[in-house]
Amino acid sequence: MTTQNTYSSFLAATTLFGECDENARMRLSVHAIEELATKGKTLFITGDQAPFYYLVRSGWIKLYRETLDGNQAIIDILPAGQIFGESALFEDDHYSCSAEVIEDAKLVRLSLPALKQEMTSNNTLALAMLKAMNRYRHDQSMELEHRALQNAPQRIGCLFLRLIDQHAEGPILLHLPYDKTLLASRLGMQPETFSRALSKLRSETGIVIKGAAIQIESVSQLAAFACSACSSGFPCADK
Amino acid sequence: MTTQNTYSSFLAATTLFGECDENARMRLSVHAIEELATKGKTLFITGDQAPFYYLVRSGWIKLYRETLDGNQAIIDILPAGQIFGESALFEDDHYSCSAEVIEDAKLVRLSLPALKQEMTSNNTLALAMLKAMNRYRHDQSMELEHRALQNAPQRIGCLFLRLIDQHAEGPILLHLPYDKTLLASRLGMQPETFSRALSKLRSETGIVIKGAAIQIESVSQLAAFACSACSSGFPCADK
Repeated sequence: MTTQNTYSSFLAATTLFGECDENARMRLSVHAIEELATKGKTLFITGDQAPFYYLVRSGWIKLYRETLDGNQAIIDILPAGQIFGESALFEDDHYSCSAEVIEDAKLVRLSLPALKQEMTSNNTLALAMLKAMNRYRHDQSMELEHRALQNAPQRIGCLFLRLIDQHAEGPILLHLPYDKTLLASRLGMQPETFSRALSKLRSETGIVIKGAAIQIESVSQLAAFACSACSSGFPCADK
Repeated sequence: MTTQNTYSSFLAATTLFGECDENARMRLSVHAIEELATKGKTLFITGDQAPFYYLVRSGWIKLYRETLDGNQAIIDILPAGQIFGESALFEDDHYSCSAEVIEDAKLVRLSLPALKQEMTSNNTLALAMLKAMNRYRHDQSMELEHRALQNAPQRIGCLFLRLIDQHAEGPILLHLPYDKTLLASRLGMQPETFSRALSKLRSETGIVIKGAAIQIESVSQLAAFACSACSSGFPCADK
């Protein structure tokens, strides 16, 4: 059986709670519940009342919103270690997007009122959360920069570079974490644009693509191609 | 002569400090200095040590970063009432972007160490800042959504709708706050794309363009065109 102690140690590994103290994490873990969720499950939709926020232990979660004309805007695709739903705290306890499981996931459901109470009485936690929020803001700002200045093949190259160890020597084999349609949506591209751009990236950088496996012969060649249109340089300043 | 009292009342009108108490705003206003800055002046560049953050009283400020290949990524264009430079607090007291005056501006320069000290001892301020940061994060997330799902004419229409009173009846005359090249950059568009998209927007919605003046005959027609590809609906849920 998973104990409060274990949940607390899970929280210690997150950006949001990594810097607050152990006693605070123990209090946040009260009433935590583990949940197995299968691919396709909707966890909540935009506007739902928000009693919980979530930690991803394994699997992948898609955050999205729907437009009036019925399209889906992908806000983020979250791997293990990420927290979501906590921003409902600042939005009258309602979720401001929808969440769906896109690969079978193990989640920890945590109490939003407990977080609100802790944040109000524990300034160290509030400061750690401010730092984490600033980091999100910077990441989004970099993404806006990339959408304005990188071309489509560069943006795919940039995504690959963010999924690997940027200091590794020699060839690297990268397994794409989810399918190409989702990758395209995550990058805000139509599937056809994504396919064309991937071909162009292959011919420009010598990467080899076999289904979900990407063989990167030369990381520096990929970086020379993708990172020239980025203000961060390579290796990524913020990674 | 401007007093600490006056600076404090300026801060009361900002999103970041509007919800903290008057005594805290007075402490933040210690050592505040008014500064007139002419168009073209660089206030700081990426990586500079950050002793100050700024409040815009009038004029327009451009925040940007430069890419390795020499292009400029516009991060934001700020009008009166906005605060910038404060995020250096979370980035080892260095600015993470550059700031330039694009229309003659009146600024208030505030002490970053004073903000750091206040934030560390005042939980109400930290919570108010968290709420404001969440708002920035939401705005950026909407912008990423728009770049993925709106076409170029819709994005220009969306920008116009955000500059007017969305509840006004009858025709509206909007004066563009800065020049079209900057508007294009702010939207992450090439100038040619912007021009073509503006023509298309005119023919689709009946707006009349004379230099920097935009006559909007029917706000609802403009909204019907621009907002169908947005998850927020019209009037903007977050405005």
